[in-house]
This record gives sequence, structure tokens and C-alpha cells, in this order.
Amino acid sequence: MTFAFDNSPVWLDLLGVFFFAVSGSLLAARKQIDIVGSLLLASLVGLGGGVIRDVILVIVPAAFTNPAYLAPPLLATVLVFFLFSSVQRYTSLLILFDAAGLALFCMTGTVKALATGLNPVASVLLGVTTAVGGGLLRDITANEVPELFNPKDIYALPAFLGSSLTAVLWVLGVFNVLTAAGIAALVFTFRVLAWRRSWQAPLAVRGWHRRTTDSGL
Amino acid sequence: MTFAFDNSPVWLDLLGVFFFAVSGSLLAARKQIDIVGSLLLASLVGLGGGVIRDVILVIVPAAFTNPAYLAPPLLATVLVFFLFSSVQRYTSLLILFDAAGLALFCMTGTVKALATGLNPVASVLLGVTTAVGGGLLRDITANEVPELFNPKDIYALPAFLGSSLTAVLWVLGVFNVLTAAGIAALVFTFRVLAWRRSWQAPLAVRGWHRRTTDSGL
Amino acid sequence: MTFAFDNSPVWLDLLGVFFFAVSGSLLAARKQIDIVGSLLLASLVGLGGGVIRDVILVIVPAAFTNPAYLAPPLLATVLVFFLFSSVQRYTSLLILFDAAGLALFCMTGTVKALATGLNPVASVLLGVTTAVGGGLLRDITANEVPELFNPKDIYALPAFLGSSLTAVLWVLGVFNVLTAAGIAALVFTFRVLAWRRSWQAPLAVRGWHRRTTDSGL
Repeated sequence: MTFAFDNSPVWLDLLGVFFFAVSGSLLAARKQIDIVGSLLLASLVGLGGGVIRDVILVIVPAAFTNPAYLAPPLLATVLVFFLFSSVQRYTSLLILFDAAGLALFCMTGTVKALATGLNPVASVLLGVTTAVGGGLLRDITANEVPELFNPKDIYALPAFLGSSLTAVLWVLGVFNVLTAAGIAALVFTFRVLAWRRSWQAPLAVRGWHRRTTDSGL
Repeated sequence: MTFAFDNSPVWLDLLGVFFFAVSGSLLAARKQIDIVGSLLLASLVGLGGGVIRDVILVIVPAAFTNPAYLAPPLLATVLVFFLFSSVQRYTSLLILFDAAGLALFCMTGTVKALATGLNPVASVLLGVTTAVGGGLLRDITANEVPELFNPKDIYALPAFLGSSLTAVLWVLGVFNVLTAAGIAALVFTFRVLAWRRSWQAPLAVRGWHRRTTDSGL
Repeated sequence: MTFAFDNSPVWLDLLGVFFFAVSGSLLAARKQIDIVGSLLLASLVGLGGGVIRDVILVIVPAAFTNPAYLAPPLLATVLVFFLFSSVQRYTSLLILFDAAGLALFCMTGTVKALATGLNPVASVLLGVTTAVGGGLLRDITANEVPELFNPKDIYALPAFLGSSLTAVLWVLGVFNVLTAAGIAALVFTFRVLAWRRSWQAPLAVRGWHRRTTDSGL
């Protein structure tokens, strides 16, 4: 039981920041934004969810107390600048990196909330908020349809599943590096499969048929 | 005077959350978003204004400490799913529920600010922020024209009136269940009349004529 | 050395609020929004950056404790209403006032963070966030392309330069009214020149050519 995480380790948080940051820089690349905007979008997506989480927990956000948090967005911007210059499939890559960030952030958000003393239900809510917050900021800022509200895709359910499992395992005292890896793999696979196979949840109103044309959202 | 509210009662806050949450689920229905998105939009609108309020007051948001706050968005999502399947007039219903939320939140925001020790002017400002915050998040997230900036409608003035009256009555020690009901009725009526009769405030610049075509906002 | 600022003086902050507020009211005028929306947009732009800054520093935002912060948005709304009725060149004026706000807020944000005890790197980050935050909120709310991500313009770099210089001079103990004026002039000139001469940073991906058509962002 000494291997169980009391709080989410910093390297796990930083890894999640990196994955989300790459998704931000890839969106900047697809939108032909310049490299400064790429760094800003990478920072907003990578750090946004965690800043929202910490502000709600009434603590100074980790991104503003630990300069290490600035490294992942910088790295992501440079990587995208040099490595992805010949890649055309930005959207697929963006979804994959975004799914990896989602898988890590739903855990780190939940664990940080539990460690701060929030009740498990609220911790799951904050985990989901942390996981979807950065991506939502990315899409709103770049004037994209938020992936979160795309009726032809499933985005929040994997985060909800991951946060719930994290809370259960943490309360049982068996949330450690192994079980965390299992949750991350599950959330990532669920999210990517939902996207590739176009899984859909029922619409907000019973008995409606989906329009064939786009709804304009 | 023992009937005067020192702080806004939780049930009043929860009722406001419910009204705003229904407006979120109705927008999800109109936009053909799925039921998960409906729950998320209901939570964002219902809880968003209060989270902004509490973050500004530097306290952990009520939505994250009291699990009861999760019930209204769940209830709203289920109600819209089952009850509104044959309703076509989403927009009218959305405006009515939004107006009810506005009427309650301008009071709860102002009273919570006053009870926390803010001065009356700042409390009115925070009351208006609480009241319009959730709806603004809803419209920005769903890529709608924010109702707040619609030049052919009056949205913020009723909230400002309600917050100001609340502050005056609270300072005088006569803000209780009766006067609160009166303020809520006044704000709701003002808002709904402004919408039905298309009341308009003067434009931002003197002497301009309104364009007949839409301004593209 | 007694002239060195320990913290950013309130009048400097209020001046920045005023400049940003005018940019908000000018956008409201261009968009034919009404005068209430003009006041709200002026408040959002003028106070938004500082509220984000203070929320991150876990202190009750200055705008909600000092009623003096409400004066600049009111003044800006009235000025735009009466003085700019015959002006057609809203965009140029908006850029100039926005640049003036940027020049002041990158300093006040950085100094307030340093005075609160944040490390210099984090203080620069918070200074940039404060400077670009209000304008980003303005553009998102009004459904405009965020100036911040416009690939045909340079917006964040002047703020980054100003915040960095501020942090260096503050640490050296020579940040005073004279050096502050110098930084403000530098940032303002850099930003306005970048806009007038259409300076561009490299794109997010190496070796891409800019599209001649707009990228749809």
C-alpha cells in the first residue's frame, strides 16, 4: 500500500500538459496561426484545465508556482514546428494527443481534489472539469465547434468513467502507478474507439431523429 | 426582523440552478446535441454563474462542496429528455426559464457577496455577474449570439434592477422571503416583457440609426 | 531608490482599465450593440484581465473591493456615446486604445505578481495573461477573431517584452515612474508598428506558405 498515490505526482500532470499542448499547437498549425499563437494555444490548452481546477480549489495554480509547467508548451510548440511540417493528417493526430491528455487529466484532477479534502462526488466532477476544460478553452478560443458538444462523437463519457474509477480506487487505497496506467489505457481506448467508430449517445430529446444536415452548431 | 435573510438560503440557490439548467438542456435539444452534452450544458449554465461568484469571493464553489447542487442539472436533463420531445417552441421556453434563473441569481449573488463582507456597490456588481455569467457561458460555448449583447433585447437591466433592490433591502434589514418574492416577480416580468415587446436601449453611439440588416454579431 | 514601485499604483491600473474599456465600447459601437451592452463590454475588457490575475493570485479582485474600478468603464461608455458619434474609423481607434491598455497591464500584472511573492518567471507569465486576458474575453464574447491569434499581426510579443523588462527592473529595484513610462512607450510603439506595418511571425509549422485566402479562423 506504500505505492498508492496520496496526491497526483507532478510528472503525471506534466505529461498530461504536454499531450494537451501538442493538440493546441496542431490546431494552430491547421489554422495557419503563427508560432507565437501556437505557443499561446499550447499553453492555454495544456495549462487551462489545471488552472481552472486549482482556482476552484482556491490554491495558486501549479502553473504559476512551478516554472517546470512552462516546459511542455514550449516543447510542444517546437516539436510541431519542426516535426509536423510534412504531415497532412492534423485532425487525427490532434484527436490522439487530446485523448491522451484527457486520460491523464481526469485522474490528476480527481486525485488533487480528493487530496484537498473534497468529497468523492465533487472530486469526480472536478476531475471531469479538469479533463474537458483545456480542450473546451482551445475550441472556444479558436472558434471551433467544441468537441465536447459534437453530437456525432463521445467525449465526456470516457473522462467521467476515468474520474469515477480513480475516485473509487483512491478511496479503497489502491490507486497506484499500475492501476493508474490501467485507467489511462481504458479512457484513451474508449475515447479513440468512440471517435473512430463514430459512437453516438442518444439526443437530448427522446424520439427525435438526427438531422442529416449539420445542425449549425 | 428575524425573518430577514442573512445569507441566501440554499434552496433558493438550487431553484435558480434548476431554472438555468433547463435553459441549457433546451438549447442542447434545439441544437440536436446528445444527452451527455445536454447534461454538460445544463451543468455549465446552472452552476457556472455561482462558480464564478464563489471564485471571485475566494471560497470553494458551493457546487463542489455540496453534492445537492448536482441534482438540478440531472433533473433538468431528464425532464427535457422525456417531457419536451413534442414541443417545438424551444426558444420561448428557453427565454422563460432563463428569465426565472436570472431573477433568482441576481438576488443570491448579491446577498452572498454582502454576507461575505463586500461593499454594497461591489455586491451589486457581483450579483449582476452571477446572474448573467451562466447564460453568457451557455451562449459562448454553444456558439450562439450572447443574449446579453443582443441590441434588440434588454437582458442585463432587469438583473441590475434586481441586484440593486436586493442590496438596498438587505442593508435596511428587510430582505426576507416576501420582499425576495416581490423582487423575483419584478425582475422576471421586466425581462419577459422586454423580450416579448422587443424593448430596446439606445445604441452605444449617439445619433446612429439601427441597421435594418443584422450586424453580424 | 525610494521612488521605486513596490506594488503597481492604483492609478496606473485604473488608467489601463480605462484604455481597455474604451476599446470595448468602440467594439460595441462598431457592432451596433446598445449602450447597456457597451457598458458591459467595457467592464468585461477593462476589468477582465485584472480579475483573472487576482483570481489566480487567490485574492478578491480589486474590481470587487474598490468601487473606483467601476468609474473607467462608465466614463468610457459615456465618452464613446457622445464623442465618437461621427467617427468612422473605429478599428484604428480600437487598436490604439487596446495597445495602450496592453502597455500598462503587462506591467501592473507582473508587478502585482512579484509583490505577492510569485517567482519572476511565473510573474512574467501572469503579466502576459493579465495583458491579453481582457482583450481575449472581448473578442470571444463579441464573436470576433481574437486579435491574439491573428497570424497577420503581432500581439502577444510586445506584452511579453514589457512583462520581462518589468520583472528585470523590479528585481533590480529600479522599476519606478520613469522606467515604467519607458516600458509603456516601448510596448505601445512595438504593438502599433506591428499592426501598421503588418509584421508577421513565422507560422506554427516550418516550411508552410501562407494561404492567400483567409484561413477561416
